[in-house]
Amino acid sequence: MNHAIVALAGGVGGAKLSEGLQQLLGEQLNVIGNVADDDTFWGLHVSPDLDTVTYWLAGVNDDERGWGLQNETWHNYETLEQIGSNPWFRLGDRDLATHLTRNQLLLQGNTLTDVTAHLAKGWGVRARILPITNDLLRTRLDTNIGTLAFQEYFVKHRHQPTVHQIHFEGATQARLTAEVENALATATAILLCPSNPFVSIEPLLAVQPLRTLLRESAVPIVAVSPIVAGEAIKGPAAAMFRAFGVTPSATAVATRYADFLDGFILDVQDAHEQSAIESLGLQVAVTDTLMTDAAGRKRVAQVALTLCEELG
Amino acid sequence: MNHAIVALAGGVGGAKLSEGLQQLLGEQLNVIGNVADDDTFWGLHVSPDLDTVTYWLAGVNDDERGWGLQNETWHNYETLEQIGSNPWFRLGDRDLATHLTRNQLLLQGNTLTDVTAHLAKGWGVRARILPITNDLLRTRLDTNIGTLAFQEYFVKHRHQPTVHQIHFEGATQARLTAEVENALATATAILLCPSNPFVSIEPLLAVQPLRTLLRESAVPIVAVSPIVAGEAIKGPAAAMFRAFGVTPSATAVATRYADFLDGFILDVQDAHEQSAIESLGLQVAVTDTLMTDAAGRKRVAQVALTLCEELG
Repeated sequence: MNHAIVALAGGVGGAKLSEGLQQLLGEQLNVIGNVADDDTFWGLHVSPDLDTVTYWLAGVNDDERGWGLQNETWHNYETLEQIGSNPWFRLGDRDLATHLTRNQLLLQGNTLTDVTAHLAKGWGVRARILPITNDLLRTRLDTNIGTLAFQEYFVKHRHQPTVHQIHFEGATQARLTAEVENALATATAILLCPSNPFVSIEPLLAVQPLRTLLRESAVPIVAVSPIVAGEAIKGPAAAMFRAFGVTPSATAVATRYADFLDGFILDVQDAHEQSAIESLGLQVAVTDTLMTDAAGRKRVAQVALTLCEELG
Repeated sequence: MNHAIVALAGGVGGAKLSEGLQQLLGEQLNVIGNVADDDTFWGLHVSPDLDTVTYWLAGVNDDERGWGLQNETWHNYETLEQIGSNPWFRLGDRDLATHLTRNQLLLQGNTLTDVTAHLAKGWGVRARILPITNDLLRTRLDTNIGTLAFQEYFVKHRHQPTVHQIHFEGATQARLTAEVENALATATAILLCPSNPFVSIEPLLAVQPLRTLLRESAVPIVAVSPIVAGEAIKGPAAAMFRAFGVTPSATAVATRYADFLDGFILDVQDAHEQSAIESLGLQVAVTDTLMTDAAGRKRVAQVALTLCEELG
């Protein structure tokens, strides 16, 4: 019997829910990951969101720092500084093993999908991690200091610039991979992780024909809110809502996905928004959505799967 | 007044004499380095000989291990092993800063000459380090286990295979850089470091028109023997002589360069070869050529420069 679930994930929020789902589903989980914040450092293709998901699902992520690997060291980074190479994007010594391996495999002609599967296996991940596309897709942010690539905005400028507009370079040409299309076609439910709508989920939705497939999908589609009590758990999602003239709220998130969504997981702190979200035609479950430990991640994952079952 | 000296160098032996020369000459020293043992690891261009010279001249080489950097760590290498990437060429965490910087600068369109100068400056080298060519030049060794690239032969197979023949891929197209031609044209003397004749010095000589320029040069050209008491100080030079049916000796080395050489530095252990080498038309100086510390390197460098002065 097929219980395959698809989760659409961005960075840390997506990785956390995915880890909870993996506890329940193991190899039945397919995580579709974002590549629009990928960038090139020292000529190496770096996939921060895919790597975050990989490291969380392998249990090797650094939970305290909030990104990268446990037991990381920075001798390479320090040496780049020492010889005047002025690195602004920190790659740890251990993390570089991922990027060196990816670089070699891509140069050998493998797709990003193949490379991601290879790395996930190498790190010991049970679930499948699928890049949304093998084609070029890059988030570009028009800000008060000019147009920035995502990592320039997020890391170099610590997401302080005011964002006027976001676009996804390559989105008109990029196509879903066959693996993503297959995972969607065979899924019994589709989850949107609590990831930044603007720079994690919407770059996925910009890849043809994902949004159309979601609208036409017969299986339950449920989102977990990335906004709790008007703020993002992590990152600039709330600030982006405000920059676009919208008060950040769970309802504001649900509204952006209302054309294809069936259910919504709302944090207990936002229970008062339940009727507003139900009025969008969505079934709502209310729970503590903060995933502060493995038990919390499993619990939120279970709530999401239960809502899918109710909707199914 | 111009005292510029050119040293032709390979790996460790070349780096040691170059360091002694730098003690005496500082910025007046131009080291022409070998690129034929360059290779690509993880997509990164790695230049082992140029880096060995750079690290020795910067005083950051690891003297005990015999290659690479002091205070090196191996977390990247260990992680590559952990994720199944099976590295056989060890790149240290700190050393990788050199290769990442080189990769970026090459991808930006800089020549290897420019990149090498940038790295030398970054590491704090006083002398100039000049790759023999910016063109492709790669040592290929036909051995009893097949044709190997230099690092495959030297590192992966620990120079154990029997070498039948050596050729230099790209040598017919490769050309000296303008910087190398200029350094040679303005040099007051040219030194051949005690480097492996077959895989360090002869790949340099294979690049047009180096050998012709040396034959036609009006300035003294002096070599320091890499063979002492019938053995190489380090590496497979003696084994290669034997594989080619020649008894390894200082005289055998001098014979290979007799068409352009003016002087030869012989180790005290090989003083009995003096007349044989003189009969090749070379002026000989005999000294302790083992460079076990900075004072020893300076002393051998001084002996070489003094012989050049006598010949000049």
